[in-house]
Amino acid sequence: MDSKEILAAFDEIAGRRGWQPLHTPKNLAMALSVEVAEMCRHLQWRSDREIEQLMQSATAGQVAAELADIQMYLLKLAAVLGVDMDAALRDKMVENRRRCAASETGK
Amino acid sequence: MDSKEILAAFDEIAGRRGWQPLHTPKNLAMALSVEVAEMCRHLQWRSDREIEQLMQSATAGQVAAELADIQMYLLKLAAVLGVDMDAALRDKMVENRRRCAASETGK
Amino acid sequence: MDSKEILAAFDEIAGRRGWQPLHTPKNLAMALSVEVAEMCRHLQWRSDREIEQLMQSATAGQVAAELADIQMYLLKLAAVLGVDMDAALRDKMVENRRRCAASETGK
Amino acid sequence: MDSKEILAAFDEIAGRRGWQPLHTPKNLAMALSVEVAEMCRHLQWRSDREIEQLMQSATAGQVAAELADIQMYLLKLAAVLGVDMDAALRDKMVENRRRCAASETGK
Repeated sequence: MDSKEILAAFDEIAGRRGWQPLHTPKNLAMALSVEVAEMCRHLQWRSDREIEQLMQSATAGQVAAELADIQMYLLKLAAVLGVDMDAALRDKMVENRRRCAASETGK
Repeated sequence: MDSKEILAAFDEIAGRRGWQPLHTPKNLAMALSVEVAEMCRHLQWRSDREIEQLMQSATAGQVAAELADIQMYLLKLAAVLGVDMDAALRDKMVENRRRCAASETGK
Repeated sequence: MDSKEILAAFDEIAGRRGWQPLHTPKNLAMALSVEVAEMCRHLQWRSDREIEQLMQSATAGQVAAELADIQMYLLKLAAVLGVDMDAALRDKMVENRRRCAASETGK
Repeated sequence: MDSKEILAAFDEIAGRRGWQPLHTPKNLAMALSVEVAEMCRHLQWRSDREIEQLMQSATAGQVAAELADIQMYLLKLAAVLGVDMDAALRDKMVENRRRCAASETGK
């Protein structure tokens, strides 16, 4: 599923509900951190083994839904900020490889 | 850029740096919320108009880099949790449309 | 209400519920960020004027309860990390005054 | 150190720097989550044993400073929202004891 499709679905709902004026950079940034925390609520008191069990239970769908929410708000925030995510990801990978190589050749 | 490509690049660096044992669900969830906050630092004391100006300044690249970091940690966390993000996004869109329709037809 | 009293009440409940082994630094740090987000959920789509109205409605008590949760987790985390909050606050104030004076005298 | 003293010091600096107009509920809520994340950065890739070592190193002061920042923003946010933190804490403790008792007596 590509980002244009995700954004189109997000904007369709926002339009029908009249939520578009709320989708300012700051509101979306706050929504993004709220969604991340909602996902963290499922993990917070569990060990990594218990999280593994959780992900094989009926709750797994709720965690997946939180991750989908995070993805949607992230893409919407990037769009509102005018950030080309593909370009940002490519730049970041180049930078990560550069730093990694620098750390390998001696620091 | 598709999620397999992003994950492959993320894992390549993690492998070369010996970071893979650190990539547990809880550590990645915490990293995700830290990255969201690093992005928020650029927005936090600014009005939406000032954010618009920021995104036309040289700092825009830093904001874009934070958004790319969030995207990478999100995909890695989903992978470690065994969540199929495409399926999660499709399910979420169906659910969002259903709720929207329900709100339109009365309730 | 002083921090010793808050911590004693927190630990009493934790002891009766058998939650003490869960109160590790990382779990408490994650709980703290989850509580902050729960508070933010009340504010996230509202303007500052709407937040003012919210704080005069019946929901104000829920916001207050979230702030109390944040306060309790913050003090518990500090205790578990061995941080003396009074000393930390005094040091921070000295530092803030120093920076402020530096910025006033032309940097 | 009591909350009035902390708030007075916070407001003194804000006044000298002209930051008071920025101290709206939403900005303070975002600042609070950013400060929590700054603290989490020190813990995020470390095990609880490594965090214990960290707290005996020179970095401990930085963690303490982040906790102090969280405390200051929390009190300022409560003040701006008109929340009496002492009352909120007392109410929360009563509620926590009630829930604990309910869970002990079999619900």
